[in-house]
Amino acid sequence: MEAAFSPSGVITITTDFGHRGPFVGTMKGVMLQRLPGAQIVDLTHEVYVHWPAEAGFWLERSYRYFPAGTVHLAVVDPGVGTDRDVLLVIGDGHAFLAPDNGLLADVVERVKGTVYKVDMARLRSFGIERLSATFHGRDLFAPLAAELAGGRAVPGSIGAPTTDYVPSLIDAPEKRGGELHGLVITTDHFGNLITNIDATELTAFRKPEVRAAGHRIPLYRTYADVLPGALLALVNSVEVLEIAAAEGNAAEVLGLGRGGPVLVIEAG
Amino acid sequence: MEAAFSPSGVITITTDFGHRGPFVGTMKGVMLQRLPGAQIVDLTHEVYVHWPAEAGFWLERSYRYFPAGTVHLAVVDPGVGTDRDVLLVIGDGHAFLAPDNGLLADVVERVKGTVYKVDMARLRSFGIERLSATFHGRDLFAPLAAELAGGRAVPGSIGAPTTDYVPSLIDAPEKRGGELHGLVITTDHFGNLITNIDATELTAFRKPEVRAAGHRIPLYRTYADVLPGALLALVNSVEVLEIAAAEGNAAEVLGLGRGGPVLVIEAG
Amino acid sequence: MEAAFSPSGVITITTDFGHRGPFVGTMKGVMLQRLPGAQIVDLTHEVYVHWPAEAGFWLERSYRYFPAGTVHLAVVDPGVGTDRDVLLVIGDGHAFLAPDNGLLADVVERVKGTVYKVDMARLRSFGIERLSATFHGRDLFAPLAAELAGGRAVPGSIGAPTTDYVPSLIDAPEKRGGELHGLVITTDHFGNLITNIDATELTAFRKPEVRAAGHRIPLYRTYADVLPGALLALVNSVEVLEIAAAEGNAAEVLGLGRGGPVLVIEAG
Repeated sequence: MEAAFSPSGVITITTDFGHRGPFVGTMKGVMLQRLPGAQIVDLTHEVYVHWPAEAGFWLERSYRYFPAGTVHLAVVDPGVGTDRDVLLVIGDGHAFLAPDNGLLADVVERVKGTVYKVDMARLRSFGIERLSATFHGRDLFAPLAAELAGGRAVPGSIGAPTTDYVPSLIDAPEKRGGELHGLVITTDHFGNLITNIDATELTAFRKPEVRAAGHRIPLYRTYADVLPGALLALVNSVEVLEIAAAEGNAAEVLGLGRGGPVLVIEAG
Repeated sequence: MEAAFSPSGVITITTDFGHRGPFVGTMKGVMLQRLPGAQIVDLTHEVYVHWPAEAGFWLERSYRYFPAGTVHLAVVDPGVGTDRDVLLVIGDGHAFLAPDNGLLADVVERVKGTVYKVDMARLRSFGIERLSATFHGRDLFAPLAAELAGGRAVPGSIGAPTTDYVPSLIDAPEKRGGELHGLVITTDHFGNLITNIDATELTAFRKPEVRAAGHRIPLYRTYADVLPGALLALVNSVEVLEIAAAEGNAAEVLGLGRGGPVLVIEAG
Repeated sequence: MEAAFSPSGVITITTDFGHRGPFVGTMKGVMLQRLPGAQIVDLTHEVYVHWPAEAGFWLERSYRYFPAGTVHLAVVDPGVGTDRDVLLVIGDGHAFLAPDNGLLADVVERVKGTVYKVDMARLRSFGIERLSATFHGRDLFAPLAAELAGGRAVPGSIGAPTTDYVPSLIDAPEKRGGELHGLVITTDHFGNLITNIDATELTAFRKPEVRAAGHRIPLYRTYADVLPGALLALVNSVEVLEIAAAEGNAAEVLGLGRGGPVLVIEAG
């Protein structure tokens, strides 16, 4: 059975390319060559370099705010030019396209999607071949995203369903002796520390308290609930635990960053 | 009387969110869900964090370069999740939407617009309710901007005119004993120091000279009027006083930044 | 004879403006005022400041990935407000617009295009006049790009063909005694060092080896061909020699940046 996907002509792009050089712009050019009316939205290009877990996390937590039928393309791809596979996931009416390096593991698990392994041979009919060794974003992912967004490539015609794909490189939070052990999956522009601890996991605690970098951090509803500069934890807008310093930079205050350990305990 | 606003389908976004994470992209997704053909332009997302004055300054100095009927959305919002109000200003054929924290004070004063306080209860008919505590950009401002840009929400139907709103957090330049005292409202990518001193205020001087960080800085017409590296002041493209170092970085040379004092005096 | 250009409504923008302030956004507003349906793509705004050679390099290496009929606008313009000329190049079905400061020299040479010197007097009929002294991106280049993309301005009507324009500020690679001497034209977000040595120049070597910052660097096909952290050289996706550190930052490892010397020699 074919998974349901009805394209809207919207494409999002998520990469670790930053904004130097024409890399993202060139991908958009390729999309416009194939789908002149495409509506292309940058999700972010400042994923920590070579950290696919962040890209997958943001995709899974953001896709539902886009029109049904959006193609979400993510390229964090240290294995470019090797024979790593390419995955297409169809779920909840959206399409997700990325290298098979763990990036889409969260998405697969949470949208209960159908996973397709893209068959490179079948892309030749779309003129997708002769790839460069270092920029599959331009030569493979962008044209394929455009063909999916334009409805010419359909999931079942470009690959076969599979259950064999690379799992997430990040461990899920784990309960040990009443403590919940998670980690910082990324930071934002304000220095807020965004963890992989879902809000639903906090309900197991009567009065949760957060421990990070030697600090005990109380849980509040929003930034303005504490005085400027004070540390707080909260459930953020994508429904995970976040550590912040009101009108300040928690990452700097705590000296903590991507991958750093965060605990939730029962307050004494 | 209803202020005149005829939407063009163009929306600009100004924030202090930077480019890390999917925050701006998600706002665009929400807009496209409600207004599929929206044309969305980033004004800037690198406003100094928690510095609404910069956002309002740029908006007021830039809006006229967009088509009439543009909705200009600005989110610099340290009070997110509190009961701070939301303002809509209609003036000169444009709409401006932002938190009521002083951000729009300059705009109101200079476009002589009509100010509406948005009535949250009236947004329920647009399905704008159940807001997250930390991201009203996504849950309130983006959908409301899209409804305004699509012509379904009209100013008089979503709030009432008011004259009660938060003033600018920044003092206007002041004349004291023949000296004009202003400040650096922001810096640009080149390190140019952009002040809140309007060009019209310089006409009060026979031969204006600028004082900043202990330097006396002469006024020229453009960067190439002095040798590379030399400091100069000029009236810039948004018609305010700017301090620059030709082919150099004035902010670094002077050790001066946002909020720093700048004087204009009569040259001796 | 008029050079062939049939506009597609797509415009790309390349600048050294960075992302602070409303400068690029304002240019897009001006374009939308004149061409409401314009499709505008950012190529990059993080060209090294005042380094037109990088902008021209990226343009020449990227334009072919956009639809035929695209207008490519590049503004790296330390001479803004002086009487420097404005060039329009038509070649390979694309249009290129930039200040006459060497930026377009590479493009001219490689697309074998027709070069027009824009006659400012002829722009008055488009309402392009009364320019600010510091922001021709907004007052001249953006409106002219929109008029070209909309088909109202045609190359022959806004200027005359010329062979007199500023050459590149960067020397082409040079062969001296069996060694090829080139330079780093820019770096990317990953710290890869991108040189001005075209892949075709490597064919003159039996077994090319790269020398930079005192290191001998072997040539491979892609990043994953060496262990993480190891230095390698490769022919990158825009067909020039690049020096990288696998999953690392070559610019930091080598302490080398824009303008730095790179040699290719015959391996011993």
